[in-house]
Formats: sequence, C-alpha cells, structure tokens
Amino acid sequence: MPLWKIYHPAGAYTEQDKKEFSQRITEIYSAVPIPKFYVVVIFEETPPGSVWVGGDRHDRFVRFKIDQMARTLPGPVIREWWIKAVDEATHPWVKDRGYEWEITIEEPPADLWTLSGERPPPFESVAEKRWIEENQATPYSLAERLPVALSLAPGTHDPGD
Amino acid sequence: MPLWKIYHPAGAYTEQDKKEFSQRITEIYSAVPIPKFYVVVIFEETPPGSVWVGGDRHDRFVRFKIDQMARTLPGPVIREWWIKAVDEATHPWVKDRGYEWEITIEEPPADLWTLSGERPPPFESVAEKRWIEENQATPYSLAERLPVALSLAPGTHDPGD
Amino acid sequence: MPLWKIYHPAGAYTEQDKKEFSQRITEIYSAVPIPKFYVVVIFEETPPGSVWVGGDRHDRFVRFKIDQMARTLPGPVIREWWIKAVDEATHPWVKDRGYEWEITIEEPPADLWTLSGERPPPFESVAEKRWIEENQATPYSLAERLPVALSLAPGTHDPGD
Repeated sequence: MPLWKIYHPAGAYTEQDKKEFSQRITEIYSAVPIPKFYVVVIFEETPPGSVWVGGDRHDRFVRFKIDQMARTLPGPVIREWWIKAVDEATHPWVKDRGYEWEITIEEPPADLWTLSGERPPPFESVAEKRWIEENQATPYSLAERLPVALSLAPGTHDPGD
Repeated sequence: MPLWKIYHPAGAYTEQDKKEFSQRITEIYSAVPIPKFYVVVIFEETPPGSVWVGGDRHDRFVRFKIDQMARTLPGPVIREWWIKAVDEATHPWVKDRGYEWEITIEEPPADLWTLSGERPPPFESVAEKRWIEENQATPYSLAERLPVALSLAPGTHDPGD
Repeated sequence: MPLWKIYHPAGAYTEQDKKEFSQRITEIYSAVPIPKFYVVVIFEETPPGSVWVGGDRHDRFVRFKIDQMARTLPGPVIREWWIKAVDEATHPWVKDRGYEWEITIEEPPADLWTLSGERPPPFESVAEKRWIEENQATPYSLAERLPVALSLAPGTHDPGD
C-alpha cells in the first residue's frame, strides 16, 4: 500500500516535482506508520487531446487513482478525514498550479498482494515493524507474524479453587 | 462518476472520434441525471505488440475499464440492462470498425472521492441538482445536502389525543 | 478474466519475451479451465523517472495489476495458494532478471462484464465449455446456460404413497 497512479498532462511535472510530490505522498503513509517502500507512485503522461471531461477536451486535468491494500479505513469519520487529508496533500501540485483534479481511492484485498515475492506480514506485526525499520521486503518467521502489542487472554481457571 | 479508461490501438481514433465518443458516453450518464463533468474519458494508446489475448499478439483490441463511483447498480435486472446499454453505446467505435473489445465496470466507494477539492454531494441532493445545472464542482452548504425530494416522516403523536 | 496490466521499464521486454510471458500467464488460467481468450495482457512501458518507490526514483520496478472477473477465490487457503502460484509464474521475467516487483489482484464483478458484445456465460456452464473449445465469444442459448454437471434435485413426493 498504496499505489498512486497519477494521470497528468504531458510535461506538467519535472523530475524535481516528481521527487517532492512522491516524498510528500510517502510522508502521509509513513506516519501511519507503514513501510516507506509500500508507497509506489507511477506518473503517467496524458498527451494533448487524450482527456475528455463531460464531452469536452480538457488538457489541464490531473486524475489520481489510488489503491490502498495495506489498511482499510473503518467508519465514515475516518474515511472523510482521510480523503480530505489526501486531497490537501496534492494541492501544491494541482490546485496551486491551476489544474483541475479528481481523486478516487480503492481498497484491494490485502491477501492477494505480494512484494518482490513476499506476502506482506500482518498489520502491526513484529515483521511489519522490522520491514518499516529495514525498508525492504524480506522473509519472516511465523513468530514474527504475531502482533507487536501481544496480549494473551487470561485462562478461566482460578488457581485458588 | 464515471472514469472511462479506453485502451485502444495507436491511431485508432481521431480528435473528432474522441470528441463524439466522449459525448456519447456523457449522454448515457447525463440522462440519469448526473453532472456532465463527472464523466471523464481517458484515451490511452496501446503501441503495436503491447496487447496479447490468450497468448497471441492482438493489435485490433479495445479494452474498456470503467469506474462508477457516483451510483451503485442495485439488483441483477438493472445490472444486466446497464452493461448491455453501455456495450451498445460503444459499437460505432469498436464493433462497426472491426475491433474486438472487452468491457468491465467497477464500483469504487463514493465516500473516498473528491473533485477539485470537493467531496461530491449526496445522490439526488439539492447540491447535486445545482452541480448538474452549473456543471462544475463548488462548495455547498449543509442544507444543500438534503434530498431534493424531501419528505419528513410524520410524528406518532396525535394532536387530537 | 483476467486482465493483466504490466507496468514495466521501457525496453525491458522484447516481442519474444512478451509472447512467452503472456503464454505462461494464459497457461495458469486455461488449466482452471477458463477460455484462453479471456486472458488479456497489456504491457505498458514506464519511461525513466516515472516510477517512485518510497519517495525514491526506481527504474527497475515492475508493477502488476490483475483483474480477475471470471472466478472468485473462496477462502484463505485457496487465496494464499493462488497469489503464490501467480507470483512464481512471473519470476523468469522479474526476479531472475534483477527487477523488483509487486502484484495485486482484484476481483471485479462478473455481471458487469462483456466480451465483444456478449456477457460471459455462467461458470462451468455448457456455453462456457463450448467457448473453451472454440476459443471465441459467440451467442449462446438459454439451455447452454445450464451447468455441465447438471443434477436436478429429487422431488419429495414418494410415488409409492
């Protein structure tokens, strides 16, 4: 998580723009925290005349298609807060430059996902924590699949009985 | 709603073709009615040798990937009617020109969606009606989030009691 | 089913590579069995500087986005087995060539899907079997929508009564 596909007019962004934009996007997710290398941004140029809005040619339009596999957003308050936060993060590269833009976020299933051959470890597991620190996908053990904040439930037997 | 991504052989469509095709697509949705500017069509050229069907190179194939965020299609009858209507609308640009084609429609969540910084208003709300008339995304008030056809439920108290 | 979108560095694959890769992918699905022409692979080149991972430019990254409309994967065991099988099938074209890669699979609804104007027949129906044999989409009758392995339930009336 996540994949950002950014369809933008050809020539809209320089190498430096792409660097700063992708770093800003990475910040949003690494604050969760999520391993930085989960954040993949693909910039895709749309040639003049290839984007049409409401039946009219539109050469100043940026379309974001975002896939978030690693986390689901539970409940309406979190979802509204998140889409607004994501939207604001894009403003320096769209709104402030006079582009119109549109964003949609989808949540593909986390269990049909691999990274360089590894299935990502469970959310907030020991392995995920290590992946965050090392910032790369490596094999992990069964024990590392346990949650970082592991609390075993107490038994129901009272030893005083 | 919606985003149409059209993967087509390089050179298949002229500027005039794209205009007419995107206007035809816009008609389908504006009849619902839905604001015209919700309809975004991105034409993407596939270079010769980049599309393979069943393991064979296929340079006469058009693939439609459609995202519909603004409405969900309830029930099997409406869904069958809709996909057939969408399919037929494409015929002048695929079937009638000797291309093979494939269409899939997905329904991303409406609550993880923004248009130039605004979350789209509720379906069939006062604000949506205004967006349809003005054909652009603008801020809207809480009152405008109410449905156009507002009917408050009667109270259970009988004033004659 | 399925659509494979393969975002790969420009020049990574030759015509022969694409042929062999798409044939390997087709094998996976035709073993289910599923009609071979359901398997569509679109190779899309990412120019240098267009892919960013964790905020860093990454010119050796291959991203697979897979849509599987024709079958859903029921249960965690089958899902883990499937994503691993898919991942391994890609190794000769990514891992063995020194690329990093990422795969996600989504399952768009089968009922919002057409192939050259035809809605695909039900899974394991007489018509699907014929489509597998003929390897093309053609009209089918109501009777052909029945399952190949048709077993009618017995009545509850005992003729001996």
